[in-house]
Amino acid sequence: MFHFTAIVTLLAVMFYFYTSMQVARARVAYGVKAPAISGNPDFERIFRVQANTLEWMPIFLPSLWLFAIYLSDVFAAGIGLVWILGRVLYMTGYAEAANKRGTGFAIQMVAVALLWGGAIYGVVSKMLHV
Amino acid sequence: MFHFTAIVTLLAVMFYFYTSMQVARARVAYGVKAPAISGNPDFERIFRVQANTLEWMPIFLPSLWLFAIYLSDVFAAGIGLVWILGRVLYMTGYAEAANKRGTGFAIQMVAVALLWGGAIYGVVSKMLHV
Amino acid sequence: MFHFTAIVTLLAVMFYFYTSMQVARARVAYGVKAPAISGNPDFERIFRVQANTLEWMPIFLPSLWLFAIYLSDVFAAGIGLVWILGRVLYMTGYAEAANKRGTGFAIQMVAVALLWGGAIYGVVSKMLHV
Repeated sequence: MFHFTAIVTLLAVMFYFYTSMQVARARVAYGVKAPAISGNPDFERIFRVQANTLEWMPIFLPSLWLFAIYLSDVFAAGIGLVWILGRVLYMTGYAEAANKRGTGFAIQMVAVALLWGGAIYGVVSKMLHV
Repeated sequence: MFHFTAIVTLLAVMFYFYTSMQVARARVAYGVKAPAISGNPDFERIFRVQANTLEWMPIFLPSLWLFAIYLSDVFAAGIGLVWILGRVLYMTGYAEAANKRGTGFAIQMVAVALLWGGAIYGVVSKMLHV
Repeated sequence: MFHFTAIVTLLAVMFYFYTSMQVARARVAYGVKAPAISGNPDFERIFRVQANTLEWMPIFLPSLWLFAIYLSDVFAAGIGLVWILGRVLYMTGYAEAANKRGTGFAIQMVAVALLWGGAIYGVVSKMLHV
């Protein structure tokens, strides 16, 4: 079983849900009524945090789970936590200013690269050794 | 095996695909040519239904499956059907007016909260009892 | 195990990541600063390639995996490769002009229809034969 990866998956889902709630709050705070998604730069930055997190979910989750299945549940979960940390820093940075989103983005990108690279290494070595 | 959850997953995917087809139809009906995604409020509401359904897929699917794996295939599938129902109501409401999207949205949110809460309960209790 | 499907999943994730990198590059090339996502039609087409690929990931990945689990790992992977090929043609076509995106789109849609149809056939026949 992959208990640790399951927990980290649910934490990542919760964090991503939180970024959606921030968009709903920002709609009220900056007076941007649905269905509009532009018109105020403060709103747009918060909207982009959620949109960018969404954009990374189909990269993060498959890489996380294939790493867990082919290499290690515990290591997948550990790197997954680093990914969440990077996304949190990206969110807090981007909310302040567009050019403060770099550090968090880099951290989560390195985390995903490790998951993806580990997963492909795991699959290919399994295929070659059978 | 998780036959019921598999079926509900394929139904949710089909419903989500249907919301995408609605966007393609609305492009023609309201004369909003790709790659534009704004300019007509009727089009924008239909576009937002699809975008919002997409936004919820990475919350719904992992919660659904972890609930199914850790608690119950049949209950996961049942709550998953409620989620789809909520999304359908959200779609039909939002297509009429932006302020008619609340009921369906609330239903699908409660369904996801049950799936997420059940999943985290399932994982944690498995970890503590082993 | 589902080695071939795992490999194709990681390739699809990498291709999708590549479309995101194209958006970052196009931001610089066409001077569209974050968080803006419109203002230049060349940028908007490249942005829509990434957005549309994202939109299809929650259709493609669940259909691919349920096909692999219920029918065949090798066939899932083969059709998955056709899907990636269709997405590549869609990307290169759309980058040139909005009306050149049809062929690639049709190919990836047929691939997904086969995966979805095969998966639902697989699940239902398993349920009826047990």
